[in-house]
Amino acid sequence: MSLFANTPAPPYYSVIFSSLRSGSSDGYDDAAQRMLQLAADQPGFLGVESAHEVSSGFGITVSYWNSLEAIQRWREDSEHQTAQKKGQTQWYDTYRVRVARVERSYGFGEAQ
Amino acid sequence: MSLFANTPAPPYYSVIFSSLRSGSSDGYDDAAQRMLQLAADQPGFLGVESAHEVSSGFGITVSYWNSLEAIQRWREDSEHQTAQKKGQTQWYDTYRVRVARVERSYGFGEAQ
Repeated sequence: MSLFANTPAPPYYSVIFSSLRSGSSDGYDDAAQRMLQLAADQPGFLGVESAHEVSSGFGITVSYWNSLEAIQRWREDSEHQTAQKKGQTQWYDTYRVRVARVERSYGFGEAQ
Repeated sequence: MSLFANTPAPPYYSVIFSSLRSGSSDGYDDAAQRMLQLAADQPGFLGVESAHEVSSGFGITVSYWNSLEAIQRWREDSEHQTAQKKGQTQWYDTYRVRVARVERSYGFGEAQ
């Protein structure tokens, strides 16, 4: 899987998910993998980028979507909602979600 | 420094900087630290969140700003421009910058 999301020309939408893991990791890796796969199968999904620091437990995942409606559907997906609840009770101390409209993009180098 | 940015109620702006480091790290740590400090001193800066994976060299830094004008000024800052050039010639294989308007935010837990 590519590290960089191959997104189209703006405008489109991003969901910036910043999180601090708790000490509990039971089932986390499998669920995270499953949620990435499930998100990628959603209509309107454009891509995802993710970086997690092992040392601090802090991570940022940015997913990209073609509309606010697609984001809303993903948020309300029943399997995703179950994972969200486990996220609050088990896997995360803290998280923040920001939904943002990408207006402009540029870059350097070949995406890998 | 807090891991989470203590941002106000939307709307505001975000700059999502996704990057893949090259093998060269000469001067990188000092420059990255200096750029964070310099950004924080800019008018309109609201906060920053950052996660970098040592294993892959992939990282995401999201900075938050109160206007597109503040982002533009920061992009054109002369010391920052020097760092941007070194980023292209030395420190990064690839990066992507996305400027996005935060429309909605929510979260769970106390920010740390």
